[in-house]
Amino acid sequence: MSFRTIEWTGEKLILIDQTKLPVEETYVDYTDYREVAVAIKTMVVRGAPAIGVTAAFGVVLAAKELLALKAVKTGGDFAAGLEVAFATLAATRPTAVNLFWAIKRMRGVVEANEGLTPAKIYKALERQSRIVYDEDIAANRAMGRFGAGLIAGDECTILTHCNAGALATAGYGTALGVIRACVEAGKKVTVFADETRPLLQGARLTAWELHTDGIDVTLICDNMAGALMRQRKIDAVVVGADRIAANGDAANKIGTYPLSLVAREHGVPFYVAAPLSTIDFELSDGSAIPIEERDAVEVTHPGGVAGAPEGIKVWNPAFDVTPAGNIAAIITERGVARAPYGAALAALRVK
Amino acid sequence: MSFRTIEWTGEKLILIDQTKLPVEETYVDYTDYREVAVAIKTMVVRGAPAIGVTAAFGVVLAAKELLALKAVKTGGDFAAGLEVAFATLAATRPTAVNLFWAIKRMRGVVEANEGLTPAKIYKALERQSRIVYDEDIAANRAMGRFGAGLIAGDECTILTHCNAGALATAGYGTALGVIRACVEAGKKVTVFADETRPLLQGARLTAWELHTDGIDVTLICDNMAGALMRQRKIDAVVVGADRIAANGDAANKIGTYPLSLVAREHGVPFYVAAPLSTIDFELSDGSAIPIEERDAVEVTHPGGVAGAPEGIKVWNPAFDVTPAGNIAAIITERGVARAPYGAALAALRVK
Repeated sequence: MSFRTIEWTGEKLILIDQTKLPVEETYVDYTDYREVAVAIKTMVVRGAPAIGVTAAFGVVLAAKELLALKAVKTGGDFAAGLEVAFATLAATRPTAVNLFWAIKRMRGVVEANEGLTPAKIYKALERQSRIVYDEDIAANRAMGRFGAGLIAGDECTILTHCNAGALATAGYGTALGVIRACVEAGKKVTVFADETRPLLQGARLTAWELHTDGIDVTLICDNMAGALMRQRKIDAVVVGADRIAANGDAANKIGTYPLSLVAREHGVPFYVAAPLSTIDFELSDGSAIPIEERDAVEVTHPGGVAGAPEGIKVWNPAFDVTPAGNIAAIITERGVARAPYGAALAALRVK
Repeated sequence: MSFRTIEWTGEKLILIDQTKLPVEETYVDYTDYREVAVAIKTMVVRGAPAIGVTAAFGVVLAAKELLALKAVKTGGDFAAGLEVAFATLAATRPTAVNLFWAIKRMRGVVEANEGLTPAKIYKALERQSRIVYDEDIAANRAMGRFGAGLIAGDECTILTHCNAGALATAGYGTALGVIRACVEAGKKVTVFADETRPLLQGARLTAWELHTDGIDVTLICDNMAGALMRQRKIDAVVVGADRIAANGDAANKIGTYPLSLVAREHGVPFYVAAPLSTIDFELSDGSAIPIEERDAVEVTHPGGVAGAPEGIKVWNPAFDVTPAGNIAAIITERGVARAPYGAALAALRVK
C-alpha cells in the first residue's frame, strides 16, 4: 500500500486528509483528542471501521493528556476524566456503530484495570488501540479471502459504491478488500465505481485508491448503474456498511439502497462486506438505525462551486438502509452469512 | 413566466444560456445556423422539445442566409442548400427524436412548396417555425391538464428528474407543465427535484425554474430517491422523455430507469409526460434508441473542479431507457396512454 490512512506513532496520530484527495495527498498530525473529534465530524477520516480505529487512538490521546495533569492522581480520577473524551468522540457522527463499539471497548479496558495507577491504565489503553488497529487489518484480509471465494471464474466485473477501501479502514478495505483479494487470487478484475454524491467518495477516494494500486477502474455517476447493468454483465455489487441490524438490514452510504434494487432487477448478487464490529445486535431491524443528515452546502455546491439557486431547500441524508432481503450475503471476518441473517449473524458472533 | 427559453424575433433567434444558470441569466443572439448547431451540442439549449423548436428556427436562419446568396436562384437551388443545414443540425445530438421530427417537418414544407421562389419558400418555413413554437406551448398546456387529472387530492408531493420544464420546451414544460397545472388547479404542491448528475439540470434548472415561479421545491441528490420514498409519501414521479418507442419504452436523462425501479418498489406511479413528437413510431422497442455518450470531463469535474484522479476511465451515457412496464401512464397533448402502449399510442397518433 503506497499510503497510510491512520498511523499511530506512540506520541501522535497521523491521518491522511481525505477531504483533500485526490488533488493533494496531505497528512495531518493530531495530539489533541478534541481535534480528532473534529476530524471525524468533518470527514478528514471517514468509513465506519476507520472511524472506530481513529476513535480508539483519540481515547489514547485523551488519556495521555490526563496523565500529564497533576490533579489526576488516582485511577478513579483518570477514568472520570476519560468519560469527557468518550462523550466528545461519541457525539461526532451517529450512524457508524463502529465508533460506539470502539469507545465501549476502550471503556472496557478502563473498567478491567480499575484500581491501577493512571500510568498503568494508560499503557493498557495504548496497547488496546494498537490491537484494534491490527485486528481491523486482519479482519479485512479475512473478509477479502471469504469474499473472493464468492466470485466465480477467472474474470470478474464488480461494481462498488462509496469507499469501503483502505481509506475507510486501518488498511486493505472491506469491499475493496474483496476486490484486492480477487486480484491476489489471480483473477482479472474490472471495477466500476459509483462517484457517490454528494461528497464523491467514489470519485475522490475509491477511484484514486484503485488507480494508485493499478487495479482497472472506471468511474460512473450513481445514476448510471441501471444503464450499466442493462448493457454489460456485472458479476457482483460489493459495498461496505456503517451499521447492520441483527436481522441483516444494512445502513450504508446514501444510494446503496436504490443500487440494491437495480442489482435485484438484473439478478446481480449484492454483497455487503463488514466486520462484526459493524453489526449492532441490539437493533432488531434497520428502522431504528439513526440516519445522519448533513449540511445543504454538500448538495448545493458540488466541487465547492454553487450549482443550485441561492436559498434552495435541500434534504441531505448521509445514509440509507438496504433491507436484508436485497442482500445475497454478508461477508464478515469470521465467514459468510446468508439469509436468514438473524441466525447466521448470531452464529458468527459466538464462533 | 419571468424568462424565455427560446425567442424568435423574425431576424434572430435568442436563447437563454442554460449552461450559465442559475448563477447568471444570460441571453445569446443567433443569426448563424451553424452556431445554433453548436448551441444544441454544447447544451446552451437542451430538452427534447426545446431542441426541436430550436432546430426549426435554425433551419429558418439557414434559409435566410441562402436567400441572400446571389448564386441561389431557383427553389431547387434553395432546397439543395438547405440540405446542408438539415445535416448539420441533425448531427448535433442523437437521442432526442424531436430534433429529427422538426427537421423532417421543415423539409416537408420545402417539398410542399416545390417550384415556388426561394422568397416564398422562406416565408412558408418562417411561418412553420412559429407554428412549431406555438404548438409546443399549446401541447404542454394540454399535457399539464391531462397530467393534473391523474393526481388525486388537494395536496400532492411529486418527484421529478432532470429538467422537463419551461427550459426544456418553448415554454410551460412537459413534466413541470403537469406540476404547474396542479398548482393552477389549486392543489398544494410539494416538489422534490433530483439534481441529475452529471450536468445537474435538476439543481441548476428545475430548482431555479420552480423557485423562480414560487413553487415549493426541495433539492436532493439522485441517489436519495430511495430513502425519500421510504420516509415520505410521494404521490407520483413525473419525468419527460427524449424518445419513446412504439411500445412505450422511454429514453430519458440518465438515472430515469433506476428511479422507475425505486418508484415501482414503493408503489409510486411513474408518469412520463411528452408530446407526440417525442414518440418514434418507427422503433418497435427501446433497444434501438441511440444513446449519446458524452465527455468524461462532465463526470470528473463536478462544478468545473477536478473531483477524480487525473486520467481515470469514465463511462458517461447521457440517457437510459425505462421499460414500458415501469410506466404507469404516458401523458401526451392528445390524452393519456396506458398499457398496452402499442395500441394506446397508435390510437392517439390518429386521434
